[in-house]
Amino acid sequence: MLTIIVGTNRRDSVSQYVAVQYSEILREKGIANVIFNLHDLPHDFIKSALYENVGKNVEFNKVRALMNESRKFIFVIPEYNGSFPGVLKAFIDGLDRSKALADKKSALVGISSGDQGAGIALSHFTDILSYCGTNVLAYRVRIPKIDEVMTDNKIIDKVLLSKIHKQAQKIIDF
Amino acid sequence: MLTIIVGTNRRDSVSQYVAVQYSEILREKGIANVIFNLHDLPHDFIKSALYENVGKNVEFNKVRALMNESRKFIFVIPEYNGSFPGVLKAFIDGLDRSKALADKKSALVGISSGDQGAGIALSHFTDILSYCGTNVLAYRVRIPKIDEVMTDNKIIDKVLLSKIHKQAQKIIDF
Amino acid sequence: MLTIIVGTNRRDSVSQYVAVQYSEILREKGIANVIFNLHDLPHDFIKSALYENVGKNVEFNKVRALMNESRKFIFVIPEYNGSFPGVLKAFIDGLDRSKALADKKSALVGISSGDQGAGIALSHFTDILSYCGTNVLAYRVRIPKIDEVMTDNKIIDKVLLSKIHKQAQKIIDF
Amino acid sequence: MLTIIVGTNRRDSVSQYVAVQYSEILREKGIANVIFNLHDLPHDFIKSALYENVGKNVEFNKVRALMNESRKFIFVIPEYNGSFPGVLKAFIDGLDRSKALADKKSALVGISSGDQGAGIALSHFTDILSYCGTNVLAYRVRIPKIDEVMTDNKIIDKVLLSKIHKQAQKIIDF
Repeated sequence: MLTIIVGTNRRDSVSQYVAVQYSEILREKGIANVIFNLHDLPHDFIKSALYENVGKNVEFNKVRALMNESRKFIFVIPEYNGSFPGVLKAFIDGLDRSKALADKKSALVGISSGDQGAGIALSHFTDILSYCGTNVLAYRVRIPKIDEVMTDNKIIDKVLLSKIHKQAQKIIDF
Repeated sequence: MLTIIVGTNRRDSVSQYVAVQYSEILREKGIANVIFNLHDLPHDFIKSALYENVGKNVEFNKVRALMNESRKFIFVIPEYNGSFPGVLKAFIDGLDRSKALADKKSALVGISSGDQGAGIALSHFTDILSYCGTNVLAYRVRIPKIDEVMTDNKIIDKVLLSKIHKQAQKIIDF
Repeated sequence: MLTIIVGTNRRDSVSQYVAVQYSEILREKGIANVIFNLHDLPHDFIKSALYENVGKNVEFNKVRALMNESRKFIFVIPEYNGSFPGVLKAFIDGLDRSKALADKKSALVGISSGDQGAGIALSHFTDILSYCGTNVLAYRVRIPKIDEVMTDNKIIDKVLLSKIHKQAQKIIDF
Repeated sequence: MLTIIVGTNRRDSVSQYVAVQYSEILREKGIANVIFNLHDLPHDFIKSALYENVGKNVEFNKVRALMNESRKFIFVIPEYNGSFPGVLKAFIDGLDRSKALADKKSALVGISSGDQGAGIALSHFTDILSYCGTNVLAYRVRIPKIDEVMTDNKIIDKVLLSKIHKQAQKIIDF
């Protein structure tokens, strides 16, 4: 199973719409997939699901199960303060690395309102996934100036769409 | 003012003891300082103090005020999943970058039970602080295999202590 | 074909011996492979094989051909000044990215006399290979304090050997 | 003394023109400075000035002396294959770290024809300078799509010029 992660817990994030678009493209290609939005994490999971409480938060455990069952991931990562959102890494810190991430495969999508397209964020997150044993697809999609390429919550820029389709196919074949 | 940040919200973390040791060394050198432990953050701050709620969480606002008043920082950063704890970055995401971090100065200390000493974590965090306008001292202290160099919650390894004193002096002079 | 790159042009480098060991392990597993040692690059290739001279250096072109024909790589990377040797990146700069690196696969091995095991070097080099389209195996082998784990130019440390065999198998299966 | 490094050995590089512009701005501010262009390195320095030949190349030694005498640096770094030019790191590998780089100060400028502005390159190079003991100014200038912002080898884009002047002042005050 392929799971698409919306990499922020911001309500109504643009990352969420990008995730939906990836989901539809994958479905058109015949690949079943689910979206998990970090917005749906328990608001206190950094305490109630980590450290001495690992495995004790029933709501968080549902996501852990989803991650454990998935073989491939697409992480949609908005740029916050020059890197990924802290909540995305906190989410990783709450997983069982060996079951959720080891020997799995992942593709990364970066989003920013500025001109970097979360390039540094994707670099950092690749280090983390590599450490956890997840192979990261070399072909990353960066989307700078997201506000300029979306209309009605859909990316319509043709060059960008072509990259997204290319990446979607590559993670299928990876 | 110099503030030392314990870079995890884990209860009774070893990072906390390292922070105390830095605090004492600075005090011996005549430098007033306070410690802020991420353990004391509101457990739901990733929701109640971010995004549409920025500035609305009274408890979190106290830390924002502390950060805004500080001119220098020492971040004590344990290695989680090959980088910094997600909660540390989420904490940064809740600050007012221009008041808390821009044009300030920082030193970084990395801790790990393994043999990396959080080297990658410090690299990532340097990127983030640089983005936020905080100048990062080149001289970083990495402490791998922390369990082997502490006795009674104090680092007593002489080589390491010499590095810590050197770094403490450098952040004073920075 | 799998090519093992000795990532420095230093004469008689320890990286070379590590490359030989990988080569033998792969051969035992039935995988044909060749070693290319950056020591064998033309001494002036940073001028005679780059920029306006791309493709004009006959000696360098032989290596370009080797890279173009290879499908998988193992890069053995010693730590110089906290990252990879500059000559390794200059070598990459002389290649035809689309033929030499795009859509290929790679494993990374880091070596250091100090305690980092070239961790940052591997992070940097992963960024570069990813940019060039080479998928990098998540499982990286870091070898800190190389002088303490080699005898007669062979790694004999059992934990380390087990990691090397595991990585060799993983790049075969990648 | 402040030295501006043109971070590539490409002939007639655009980085060279950016370096000249920084030099003039600094001079207007009353700061003496010199430019060193990596194009002027001996073409075989990766062999004749490194390893067993460290300190033996008379031409390269002149640059080593220049670096040793300088207190501050500005590195102008074009993006090659998603990072800095290999020749720039090879140049660093030929220096005496303790004399050339330790306890000095540096500012970084990134250039690209694409849309990244060498962001990853600056991240990597910050790691290297930090390792070598050079404090790196947080305020970095990235110049993406360099061809669109230069006229007659001068940057005339006002937003960009304002950033350059700001950075020049910051490295003076650092």
